[in-house]
Amino acid sequence: MVEVCQDSSFIVPGFRAAAVRAGLKKNAHALDLALIFSETPATAAGVFTTNQVQAAPVLVTKDHIAAGKARAIIANAGNANACTGQRGLADARRTSELVAEALNIPPREVLVASTGVIGQPLNMDLIARAVPALVSALANEHILLAAQAIMTTDSFPKIKEFEGRAGGVPYRIQGMAKGAGMIMPHMATMLCFIMSDIKIHARDLQEALSAAVAKTFNRITVDGDTSTNDMVLVLANGLAENGLLSDQDLEGFSQGLEAVMADLGRMIVQDGEGATKLVDIVIKGAKTPADAVNGACRVANSSLVKTAFFGQDPNWGRIMAALGRAGILMAEDHTDIWVDAVQIVAAGLGKGAEAERAAARIMRGKAFTITVNLNQGVYEDRMVTCDLTHEYVSINADYRT
Amino acid sequence: MVEVCQDSSFIVPGFRAAAVRAGLKKNAHALDLALIFSETPATAAGVFTTNQVQAAPVLVTKDHIAAGKARAIIANAGNANACTGQRGLADARRTSELVAEALNIPPREVLVASTGVIGQPLNMDLIARAVPALVSALANEHILLAAQAIMTTDSFPKIKEFEGRAGGVPYRIQGMAKGAGMIMPHMATMLCFIMSDIKIHARDLQEALSAAVAKTFNRITVDGDTSTNDMVLVLANGLAENGLLSDQDLEGFSQGLEAVMADLGRMIVQDGEGATKLVDIVIKGAKTPADAVNGACRVANSSLVKTAFFGQDPNWGRIMAALGRAGILMAEDHTDIWVDAVQIVAAGLGKGAEAERAAARIMRGKAFTITVNLNQGVYEDRMVTCDLTHEYVSINADYRT
Repeated sequence: MVEVCQDSSFIVPGFRAAAVRAGLKKNAHALDLALIFSETPATAAGVFTTNQVQAAPVLVTKDHIAAGKARAIIANAGNANACTGQRGLADARRTSELVAEALNIPPREVLVASTGVIGQPLNMDLIARAVPALVSALANEHILLAAQAIMTTDSFPKIKEFEGRAGGVPYRIQGMAKGAGMIMPHMATMLCFIMSDIKIHARDLQEALSAAVAKTFNRITVDGDTSTNDMVLVLANGLAENGLLSDQDLEGFSQGLEAVMADLGRMIVQDGEGATKLVDIVIKGAKTPADAVNGACRVANSSLVKTAFFGQDPNWGRIMAALGRAGILMAEDHTDIWVDAVQIVAAGLGKGAEAERAAARIMRGKAFTITVNLNQGVYEDRMVTCDLTHEYVSINADYRT
Repeated sequence: MVEVCQDSSFIVPGFRAAAVRAGLKKNAHALDLALIFSETPATAAGVFTTNQVQAAPVLVTKDHIAAGKARAIIANAGNANACTGQRGLADARRTSELVAEALNIPPREVLVASTGVIGQPLNMDLIARAVPALVSALANEHILLAAQAIMTTDSFPKIKEFEGRAGGVPYRIQGMAKGAGMIMPHMATMLCFIMSDIKIHARDLQEALSAAVAKTFNRITVDGDTSTNDMVLVLANGLAENGLLSDQDLEGFSQGLEAVMADLGRMIVQDGEGATKLVDIVIKGAKTPADAVNGACRVANSSLVKTAFFGQDPNWGRIMAALGRAGILMAEDHTDIWVDAVQIVAAGLGKGAEAERAAARIMRGKAFTITVNLNQGVYEDRMVTCDLTHEYVSINADYRT
């Protein structure tokens, strides 16, 4: 029943989108304001940053989504509206009101998201001026434009689709996402908006979303840490009229949601600031589930490991050292390491120059997997990461100035 | 009584040193083997890496130093002798035996340290061939050469001296250190060897050393994490004949040790791989001592904060976001931030463009301090960090290959 497809003409019934240039980005020619609109009332769920410092749009959207329904998502790039105090909160609320007026829906049904520079007030004049044009531009075909408008340092828009069936009735899921400096991932602003025409209870939608985030976006971040602005929102308008979801249907929807989000997550890492390699870090044989994910996190976030990826160097000593300080049960002389199918470490010792040369050849590619077997137990987990490059430094040293 | 001095002719009575080129470094013309020798029996203390993966020289030296005495330290650069299994242990022991034979002392009085590439066996032929020349070259004046020989990616040798008095008698402390990729500091191999002619009990020496490490080298690392090879060793030969140390004398010695190690620690950060800025991160007004150090660590190790330092950009939003995910008691609207004396954030809000321009001017310098007042309590701590630069990526992508 599961078919993941990528099709620019893919449309989820009942959803429209639009994007305009409001002038919030430094680049005056870039789209920077996006709107997603559900023509009918929709069930809504969200997952938000766990950072103690939460941007104004996060606070406002958490409040608005509490009732489990929404019809619109307004998102701007160029300014995060974070660390902006009471004024920032008023601006985020005002943004929802402007959109609500233009769409003739209650402000509480408008969700607000922002990404960009922290600590500067939002230019509300620019937003007020842009909203009428944004609403006028709403169309089924403009999802790609909306995905472009929420980009910051992303180099390509990220969209993913899924088609499933529930109670014999077809339904669709479509998601868009933006990433950022995913090399130090818990600092990136990650936005993801998902639309579906499935008919689903708000509680079930929230559960499916939370479970999918844990397996996807939280596997491209450290310890589930997130930036001041991160949010994943899903709207389900029920137009598929699938009736009450069976357990099996619900499971199918959850898998579809996870498939869409997993691919969007990989796209975010692939498009990480300055990244040239997409690397899966797989930890097997961990004593506990926590050991598996913590080991993967330590390796995936080591600057020395990441620069070795950039250098196409199977420098397994750095991987071993990262595992040694991960606070997990491990023993050097029980540890095996592979690059794709090439084993470079057996029982803690290097397999020699030939194996390393073969591994180095694999690492010249754009994607590979580092697998570690701790040989301590049965648990396995993974993190998706990228390399640390000169370009990352350039992007982040020059971001504001 | 406290006088910190830097003097290349400074000598601690009874200590000699030597350095030779054994051929262990890739650069065939570089010194790579160092020896420190105490002409008389010396009290010894050490602090070692807390990484679960511990290099062979760490294991051997921990064993040798257990009795609280030692007369020699042999240290090589170019090969860490880490992740080398039983062979590595045998090689580290054999190294101590070769030096012991040449010096006519027991092998247990020889401490062994290594730094360099992980996972490759030590070339014992090169070491065996070099030891006689090394011992022949021992001289009072060769401390600087020894400090050069233990360098890996360091750009300058790091030596620091101190003169104090105990019971009216003068004594001296001299330390040398090497750093490495201190931008991701818990992965760096840090070696520090300290000589003194003070007469002191082994237990007091260990206590003074452990306390000084906590306040110095552990403030340039995350959570006290260290690499597979880190060690700080101190030898005290008692030639100052100061008699029994009073509590005040012991306090004076501890302060002297801390002063030497604090300066060596700052030199290590200043010479961090690719670093162009030395930055103190000071957290004030923390609710607990742990909050103060954890907050400082999070800011000091954020890639986004460090690249902003490189870009000379007072991007305080990144500092705020790092604090927000530090797991400490903080509130955005209680947080103040300064660059040196220029306040850029008051009660969570930016002080505006003029303040940021003034801060940016300060950040063009080689050293500055970021001060955060959390306004939650009375505790304060600091971390010393550096910027994240293109050069860091180059050094670590090209290190082995």
